[in-house]
Amino acid sequence: MPDFIENVRLSDDGKAVVILDQTQLPNRKVYLRLETAEDIYDAIYLLKVRGAPAIGICGAYGMYCLALQMRGKDKLEFDREFDRYKKYLMASRPTAVNLSWGLNRMEAVIKKHREENTEEICRHLREEALAIQREDVEMCRSISEYGLSLIRDGDGILTHCNAGPLATSRYGTALGPLLLGREKGMNFRVFADETRPLLQGARLTCYELQNAGVDVTLICDNMAGTVMKNGWVQACFVGCDRVAANGDTANKIGTSQVAILAAYYKIPFYVLGPTSTIDLECPSGDSIPVEIRDGREIKDKFYRESMAPLSVKCYNPAFDITDHSLISGIVTEYGICRPPYTDSLRMIFQKKGETR
Amino acid sequence: MPDFIENVRLSDDGKAVVILDQTQLPNRKVYLRLETAEDIYDAIYLLKVRGAPAIGICGAYGMYCLALQMRGKDKLEFDREFDRYKKYLMASRPTAVNLSWGLNRMEAVIKKHREENTEEICRHLREEALAIQREDVEMCRSISEYGLSLIRDGDGILTHCNAGPLATSRYGTALGPLLLGREKGMNFRVFADETRPLLQGARLTCYELQNAGVDVTLICDNMAGTVMKNGWVQACFVGCDRVAANGDTANKIGTSQVAILAAYYKIPFYVLGPTSTIDLECPSGDSIPVEIRDGREIKDKFYRESMAPLSVKCYNPAFDITDHSLISGIVTEYGICRPPYTDSLRMIFQKKGETR
Repeated sequence: MPDFIENVRLSDDGKAVVILDQTQLPNRKVYLRLETAEDIYDAIYLLKVRGAPAIGICGAYGMYCLALQMRGKDKLEFDREFDRYKKYLMASRPTAVNLSWGLNRMEAVIKKHREENTEEICRHLREEALAIQREDVEMCRSISEYGLSLIRDGDGILTHCNAGPLATSRYGTALGPLLLGREKGMNFRVFADETRPLLQGARLTCYELQNAGVDVTLICDNMAGTVMKNGWVQACFVGCDRVAANGDTANKIGTSQVAILAAYYKIPFYVLGPTSTIDLECPSGDSIPVEIRDGREIKDKFYRESMAPLSVKCYNPAFDITDHSLISGIVTEYGICRPPYTDSLRMIFQKKGETR
Repeated sequence: MPDFIENVRLSDDGKAVVILDQTQLPNRKVYLRLETAEDIYDAIYLLKVRGAPAIGICGAYGMYCLALQMRGKDKLEFDREFDRYKKYLMASRPTAVNLSWGLNRMEAVIKKHREENTEEICRHLREEALAIQREDVEMCRSISEYGLSLIRDGDGILTHCNAGPLATSRYGTALGPLLLGREKGMNFRVFADETRPLLQGARLTCYELQNAGVDVTLICDNMAGTVMKNGWVQACFVGCDRVAANGDTANKIGTSQVAILAAYYKIPFYVLGPTSTIDLECPSGDSIPVEIRDGREIKDKFYRESMAPLSVKCYNPAFDITDHSLISGIVTEYGICRPPYTDSLRMIFQKKGETR
């Protein structure tokens, strides 16, 4: 079994969130201790911790640690500050729904135990955050099993960005079937889009797959079509930051292009993610806010010197929306949803309700 | 009129080729003097001079300079060495046909004047090389006029890689209509794909368009689909390295993806290039050799440190083939070819023959 990377956890003294700084990979393995709300906000905004499920977990641990710091305050102030911190952290990345999902679960704990004192509430918050992470491990395992049923030994798989263990906890979502398959002795040939501008594919996906002994080839994002044309890809696996009720999916910028190319070359395109990523309140992709980031990420981040005239305008959306019509299936921990998604996504929530 | 960049020329002493080192742009404007066959080979292979028409011109000047160095040799040796140099330079970049086209024109001069002495032959070679460059200027102007007829003031244009003045001489091909239109007081909104891994779009296209006062926005290659979806693109303009008899077009890696996205979003996709880029001997894209380059260009070129595990495999094709079915028109100096290209490309050569 590959040596899993612990990307988010509670510190040994139980007072802070410890994350593996993903911006330093693959060159350095640096762990950061996050104590203040600003620490947590910055870590999420600057993608030191990233991946929809991972930022949900980080947000939950963060809210617990902040609550712990306030446990001496009177109840009214405790609640008010908790609410303020929640809104603050929520703004760190607007696209992924898992962050608000995680923060909402923490808030629900406060409401459920409103009669108890802050000390007791903190204990419940700690349990909830640990539960969120524990459930994520189980979810990833289940998603991986369902995903693995879609591919065969020897297949070529193209993936975009990083939806592996670093983005979640254990296995990951889009990379989960490949890691699980590897454990079972299967071999896949993975093509990893480098994923500009922040290169999560080059830096993180290649790193994770190599660590796990999975055959991986790095390509630039603009080579995906050629790799498909060459007949080397039997399926595309990507993660997701938010899935709307009609199946429209927000994920890392460039994902929708991969889906269009896959449709052109008649290759199945699968989205893999936990049901916490599905936002039934959101009717379609048009309602998903897309974060626009600083153009300097394109022009001079990572480079020895600027690779474009410094004054040139940039457009740098962090995500795009893949139309539901381009998606062959959405793989969740409760099973695989197929079109029409308006029906299948609602049904998966019913199944979730029954299972619980 | 914008200040045109002189990218390839004969040195003032007439003995060497002088090029603007495109790998140093936009940060430094460095001119290099190329004297030996190795200098010329390396300049082309390392993309210090690049762009299909520009390397044709550079190759022609190079052959003249090498011939000049050999003019004291006896005729038999002169011819043998000329042939050896020609084959050597031809191998520097296999995909673009303009290089071999330029070298073949120089060889034809030798054959035509076989009765003359090497001194006289060198004089003819010099004239031919100058003619090739002069004709390129006229060709680009004509392509720009035809290209301009396809778009309207205010249009958004997406381009990939660099097919501007740096890739040709004056105006360029794909950027020609935009520069010519700007001279005529028209305004376009250009989206430039950065064009990984060597960033010709970021480094060169943005630089050229900014210099000419054209509104340009830099995007990563994986954002082209989103820009199209936003309704910001009315046409795509790209250059070409070789066009087969059926219209299949070799151009910078990523071009075929742009064409697939344009077809999906119902945006016209135009290829612009001189007839010297059309290879009627080549029945389809399957017969075009595609150069595969070193994977380190993806992993660590330009970066402060490697952006992927150093041992990870890479696949780094420098070009791809855009299927003729995805191309709305091929714009040449003799007019615009429309599908079916098997007919229209042959007809443009007839027109070329009549015009000459």
